Amino acid sequence: MDMHHVEPDFSVRDITVLVRSDAERQAVVAALQNRPGVQVLNYSDRTFLLHLGGKIGTALKMPVKNRDDLSMVYTPGVARICEAINEDKSKVFQLTIKRNTVAVVTDGSAVLGLGDIGPEAALPVMEGKAMLFKQFADLDAFPIALNTQDPDEIVRIVKAIAPVFGGINLEDISSPRCFEVEDRLRAELDIPVFHDDQHGTAVVMMAGLLNALKIVGKKMEDLYVVVAGVGAAGVACTKILQTAGVRDIVGCDRKGIIDPTQQYDNPIKQWYAENTNRTGRKGSLADAMHGADVFIGVSGPGIVSAEDIQSMAADPIVFAMANPIPEILPEVAEPYVRVMATGRSDYPNQINNVLCFPGIFRGALDVRAKEINEAMKLAAAQAIADCVPEAERNEQYIIPSVFNPQVVESVRKAVAEAAVQTGVARRRLSTTGSSHTVDEFDDMHVTQ
Amino acid sequence: MDMHHVEPDFSVRDITVLVRSDAERQAVVAALQNRPGVQVLNYSDRTFLLHLGGKIGTALKMPVKNRDDLSMVYTPGVARICEAINEDKSKVFQLTIKRNTVAVVTDGSAVLGLGDIGPEAALPVMEGKAMLFKQFADLDAFPIALNTQDPDEIVRIVKAIAPVFGGINLEDISSPRCFEVEDRLRAELDIPVFHDDQHGTAVVMMAGLLNALKIVGKKMEDLYVVVAGVGAAGVACTKILQTAGVRDIVGCDRKGIIDPTQQYDNPIKQWYAENTNRTGRKGSLADAMHGADVFIGVSGPGIVSAEDIQSMAADPIVFAMANPIPEILPEVAEPYVRVMATGRSDYPNQINNVLCFPGIFRGALDVRAKEINEAMKLAAAQAIADCVPEAERNEQYIIPSVFNPQVVESVRKAVAEAAVQTGVARRRLSTTGSSHTVDEFDDMHVTQ
Repeated sequence: MDMHHVEPDFSVRDITVLVRSDAERQAVVAALQNRPGVQVLNYSDRTFLLHLGGKIGTALKMPVKNRDDLSMVYTPGVARICEAINEDKSKVFQLTIKRNTVAVVTDGSAVLGLGDIGPEAALPVMEGKAMLFKQFADLDAFPIALNTQDPDEIVRIVKAIAPVFGGINLEDISSPRCFEVEDRLRAELDIPVFHDDQHGTAVVMMAGLLNALKIVGKKMEDLYVVVAGVGAAGVACTKILQTAGVRDIVGCDRKGIIDPTQQYDNPIKQWYAENTNRTGRKGSLADAMHGADVFIGVSGPGIVSAEDIQSMAADPIVFAMANPIPEILPEVAEPYVRVMATGRSDYPNQINNVLCFPGIFRGALDVRAKEINEAMKLAAAQAIADCVPEAERNEQYIIPSVFNPQVVESVRKAVAEAAVQTGVARRRLSTTGSSHTVDEFDDMHVTQ
Repeated sequence: MDMHHVEPDFSVRDITVLVRSDAERQAVVAALQNRPGVQVLNYSDRTFLLHLGGKIGTALKMPVKNRDDLSMVYTPGVARICEAINEDKSKVFQLTIKRNTVAVVTDGSAVLGLGDIGPEAALPVMEGKAMLFKQFADLDAFPIALNTQDPDEIVRIVKAIAPVFGGINLEDISSPRCFEVEDRLRAELDIPVFHDDQHGTAVVMMAGLLNALKIVGKKMEDLYVVVAGVGAAGVACTKILQTAGVRDIVGCDRKGIIDPTQQYDNPIKQWYAENTNRTGRKGSLADAMHGADVFIGVSGPGIVSAEDIQSMAADPIVFAMANPIPEILPEVAEPYVRVMATGRSDYPNQINNVLCFPGIFRGALDVRAKEINEAMKLAAAQAIADCVPEAERNEQYIIPSVFNPQVVESVRKAVAEAAVQTGVARRRLSTTGSSHTVDEFDDMHVTQ
């Protein structure tokens, strides 16, 4: 209890109470309000309190304490730096924040499970994302929450602000606009553009699947996979599965199986019709599940039944990633599945993008990659999978913890190598450098 | 001397040498290169070295060390913050970085004395500016260097990214586009938009002039002022002089006096023709100088002669602010001027924007001002002037040092008060708060 201030007739106090739930908090507030002479002026909680004024700020790499400092970081000294970049534009990577800075770009149209809440309400998520970039990969990320949802505008704006950034992380942009925005930016910018809702999910799913297949002893090329939910994440999961060698995939929307003999107005569904379901399956999601080796859910709560799981092939692998409520709860599926993963932290095997985006951008930026391509994504998935030691791998442990310090460094190295091998890197990874710095000495060789 | 590495036949060493000038550095390098057996692999200097990787980064207000942290700063806890802002958009000021964050926006078209060097080469200046915002006013600023110089595009982009920012500092955008960009953004955004090259210069010039007039015992309304250079800074100086009560101003471009009887294609010169030179002076800059009380130079090097100064009225006040070489050097003008100021730090009375922009944004953001208006600029000028104690004020000391810690706090308070008085503030300044925080307790009252 802290005293805020005291008047002759009353005092204002700040009381901290630990509660376990919103309901318990409301009960505490109600009990206080009902006491004679007590008035509850305000109540808050630690999540709101820690968000006051936002979660990130600007850090200075050196203080500006005197005229000597000022003359180096600003006029007149900075003019020589500007001239050096003006003479050789590639020096922007050495002499500015570009090489370590990522834009977290959203239009606020598909934020968490909340939907189209706009740029202001999306901002706390983007700040949180920026925190994770810094905490996990020492990357400096800045939130760009756009007051437009027009794909042309978004593309134009991101292209215009790109000089400051070494990479663009697209976030929470709704489907199908997210595909157009990402495709166009990838084509028109020479820095990595990565829609995390698509590819982050796909990479971590693939990491889990790589380990799950070792447990059940199946191969990618022999799998029949059902993907429920054909939005941004579903398409990305399908594409990475195909890149990894899976040949038989069926996509399902709310109406059931996407049918190759039909025409679809939605370009994504039409893509599914043209690129999946090679055996021409028809019917409901339940029909699709018959004989499936793997279920990938990026759809909605509770759409899969225990019977559906029972109809799958031997050793079913179920990734029910809908958040916060999975397609089927682990306690319901447990008797019938062999390996199960969700998007939640309170069950084993959490498919969490945090395992992917810090390391994949760290690796891409460290070699100044022009893009993040399929080879780099698969390399990231393999690196994440390999962070689970073979001796420890089991049905409950196919995915490393998000706080496993090995993950970022492993992903970084694998992604950087894949970038070099696929010819999209503009420099090599320093052999002596630590995980979070590029080789300063190399840079010194080219500053003048 | 540091050993970098040793081979059987040679060693690579890193040698640090203190030099006084570029010429001396070149002499040292040449002398080393001429020594038998020595090869200079690379040389650099401390200004380049401190720019490696840029000068700013992202700071986290709390670490993300465990699952509990993660669940508050990111999913699932952050969803409640998003919902609170979605229900009441004004809460974006409480629960995100917006209230303390300034965009430093440039198109790289008029950078320092270097001109149109583009967004990449302009970035070190914008980073430096962001450092000064942080160091002097604890504001978090982020550089936005745009890959477009189309005013329509710049306006559209800044409007689109505005949700993240509490204020927009326009920087190094060339005239006349800077006027259109600023005017349109001011009209269309509900946060302060401030072109520092115009108004920062004008405010600090006005601060110096306020003190200079006390020394010479003249009044604003009696002055005849010559403004040389009718670009961005010149127009802003002219406008603030008019707001402060000066009635007789003559603007000069390279061809001489702007003539009210002429028509000009350039809209800025046409504005001068319509709004200055009430007595219809004609002729050269030298003609304009006859009988002037004050000369304001924001033009080019050496355009004013000692004879010009001699032709001025008694107690001439000369602000020769062209950088790096003033319109007339102080050592040339000294025998004839009463009060002289320049843009340089190696002469007395430096007119430096750093005295203005940190405090003016600090004050504006602390009261959530919708704009920075003329009253707020004049209040800032008066506050800067008042930081020179009356007892110490003299011809050599009309402007406080940029490192005077009193300046930001004085400007902040004066600007915040002016914002409240002119009805553009959305909150009052906390009476108990320190200079660099807004009242958290007030915010707590409205978080739920």
